[in-house]
Amino acid sequence: MTQATIVIVGDELLTGERVESNSGYIARTLGEAGIAVKRIITVGDQLEEITSAIDVGLADCQLVLLSGGLGPTSDDRTKDALCRYFAVQLEFHPQILDDIRNRFAERGMEMPQVNREQAYQPAGATLLDNPLGSARGILMVNERSGAIVSALPGVPPEMKAMLADSLLPLLKEKGLASPPPAQRELRVVGLPESGVAEMLAPLEERYASHPHFAIAYYPHQIEVLVRLKAQGLEAEKGASFLDALEEEARRLLGDHIFGGGEDDLAEVVGQMLKERKATLAVAESCSGGLLSQRITAVPGASDYYRGGVVAYSNQVKVELLGVREETLETVGAVSEEVAMQMALGAASAFSAQYALSTTGIAGPTGATAERPVGLVYIACCRREDVRAYGHIFTGGRHMVMRRTAQTALDILRLTLLHDRFPEKRKGEMT
Amino acid sequence: MTQATIVIVGDELLTGERVESNSGYIARTLGEAGIAVKRIITVGDQLEEITSAIDVGLADCQLVLLSGGLGPTSDDRTKDALCRYFAVQLEFHPQILDDIRNRFAERGMEMPQVNREQAYQPAGATLLDNPLGSARGILMVNERSGAIVSALPGVPPEMKAMLADSLLPLLKEKGLASPPPAQRELRVVGLPESGVAEMLAPLEERYASHPHFAIAYYPHQIEVLVRLKAQGLEAEKGASFLDALEEEARRLLGDHIFGGGEDDLAEVVGQMLKERKATLAVAESCSGGLLSQRITAVPGASDYYRGGVVAYSNQVKVELLGVREETLETVGAVSEEVAMQMALGAASAFSAQYALSTTGIAGPTGATAERPVGLVYIACCRREDVRAYGHIFTGGRHMVMRRTAQTALDILRLTLLHDRFPEKRKGEMT
Repeated sequence: MTQATIVIVGDELLTGERVESNSGYIARTLGEAGIAVKRIITVGDQLEEITSAIDVGLADCQLVLLSGGLGPTSDDRTKDALCRYFAVQLEFHPQILDDIRNRFAERGMEMPQVNREQAYQPAGATLLDNPLGSARGILMVNERSGAIVSALPGVPPEMKAMLADSLLPLLKEKGLASPPPAQRELRVVGLPESGVAEMLAPLEERYASHPHFAIAYYPHQIEVLVRLKAQGLEAEKGASFLDALEEEARRLLGDHIFGGGEDDLAEVVGQMLKERKATLAVAESCSGGLLSQRITAVPGASDYYRGGVVAYSNQVKVELLGVREETLETVGAVSEEVAMQMALGAASAFSAQYALSTTGIAGPTGATAERPVGLVYIACCRREDVRAYGHIFTGGRHMVMRRTAQTALDILRLTLLHDRFPEKRKGEMT
Repeated sequence: MTQATIVIVGDELLTGERVESNSGYIARTLGEAGIAVKRIITVGDQLEEITSAIDVGLADCQLVLLSGGLGPTSDDRTKDALCRYFAVQLEFHPQILDDIRNRFAERGMEMPQVNREQAYQPAGATLLDNPLGSARGILMVNERSGAIVSALPGVPPEMKAMLADSLLPLLKEKGLASPPPAQRELRVVGLPESGVAEMLAPLEERYASHPHFAIAYYPHQIEVLVRLKAQGLEAEKGASFLDALEEEARRLLGDHIFGGGEDDLAEVVGQMLKERKATLAVAESCSGGLLSQRITAVPGASDYYRGGVVAYSNQVKVELLGVREETLETVGAVSEEVAMQMALGAASAFSAQYALSTTGIAGPTGATAERPVGLVYIACCRREDVRAYGHIFTGGRHMVMRRTAQTALDILRLTLLHDRFPEKRKGEMT
């Protein structure tokens, strides 16, 4: 498998004033072409920085791909770095100058003198056409080692077009690009990363010495992505091994798995509602609109989502959701009882078959001795029936809100999946 | 000036499957503390990759700052890399184990066995407290060179808290960080980046040859950050120059400026409501809960926010918000009239002095020949009075929703600021 180093060039990236997304795009595109990215190095516009990044890359990679620093101004030094690295001079290409002049003429403009610079290219380089701009891409080969150094512009649409249309075909021709390795992803909810790892320990143990087995965990604050890999196997050959791994992972994690790599919990729940021709409403207190926002972020949510109430005062809970004043007075707004009445009230106000409600203390204020920040009750209403779940979520205000919305969606998912309310789980209050 | 290399650790970043924003944040924060970032290296979770990135960094930097790979699972190897680099062993810290156990116990959970791992730390390391998670930060000093290697978690809120509260104070103590250069930031709403630059052109022209003047524009999709800099001047000496720049910028941009660098529009609006002892309610259709979410993201929002209705069906608009069926039938839900009735209905249902409403087509479906994706009506109700504003927002579903919520908040801000509805602006439909 070809290994690559990506080098992103630009002073403004080192001050954090601009955030680049080229490196992620290049990494994904190379990965899909079977090229493993070993590292990404971001450096400034100085000649020494660029050449030293090429050095680091070529120490253990067959490909170094640079992006940026190909413009016509004096702070663009990528071409100079390639010349120094390969010990060649810049050569003048009259036909490139004509091209650039024509490009400006087509827009009724005269070519600025500074653009002449772009007609000079490292001697011996293979030049890559740029359908969208005046900077050429460059590909150079180290004759002794066969290693390749290539440079593309930093302007994202130019880089993307040239990577797909010029560079990858050349790399395939040279036998450096190949089909991607086999892997599968599962999205897990309701467990911390360590909990997922613990439940998958038997899988890790069984395959510990298997030559193709690899597993990785990526926590995303409100869920965990598990990646099962058939290392060293191509997609086709790895498929049955991955089938076996996935089957065991599913057996161990059960309904904690809500989907594959690209799935979103709100979308999965929406799909389940759609299949059941069911409708949903919400009543939010501590999640403040975020639960509704997650539901409506899914295109087509209006097929099953009727709407919601954000009830930020007791009066609203009473008037719009029919919460009993007596309950608010005796047990308080942050309680199982109020959560259940809110869910029933939302189902009724919006004529929905299912409803979710949240009430809790997102913080930083509002906590009491009995009710700490993070205490949240979530209720789920299923036709006439209702059930509440208590949690204590950690993190700041926004994280408590995110965990509340995610957990509410998951309670509904489990309810729809099993056609009954889920049992309380480890970590939930009883 | 201290030079630093940032090392971001995580396999998933090399496949482009996750995009990280930690490196930009760290670069900016270090830059503000007078530390120049020389390069950013992103590597996978392998021990060799992490140690070789440390090597590259320490070749010419006094600080290598790692982020990521401090979790408890087997693919987290940053601590091992530090041990190898400094030739030390992991040491067991019983009080860290107690802390982690307590952290789980507070949430009513038993600590998974795998978390024991986080009580082991490199011998001789200075440990940095993590207010939000169980992974400790690490700071180690190379006794011979005085160079520092530090590791923070990859989870952004944890990294940010520990960088500001633990690591930077330590670096300042060691004389590696210095006071930030003099600068001032203004947040601008209701204009694209090019519009902001156009309005500030007289300022740029006047100071073009001033030795200390610099200005930068950072577009953030729904607003623009303008940074005025007194280059080469320290905070104290630059203050009066920055005062002059800010005064002129405020004169040129007028009420497009809603605050300073760290201000959030919803927070600014909340503060204005609080000062006026006024209350707010919302009725959302196309923004789907996002407007409510932005309002409630502000701690203490319950002081002025009464709540909202997400009306995702016409029936809800009629029953909960009192929109007239006749209006829905004649002009349709996406109209000035319905927006105004929704705002009035929300003010009435929630007994609020001010109300905002949104109705539009967030896409990708729902557009007609007369009503394209991005068409949004926003109404603002001020006591008994109401006014609607039409916009066509660009971008995908989520961006249309974000622009809708932001614009609604800005209409309310201008209404509160001038104690009357704002005039329609360039770019708004008339």
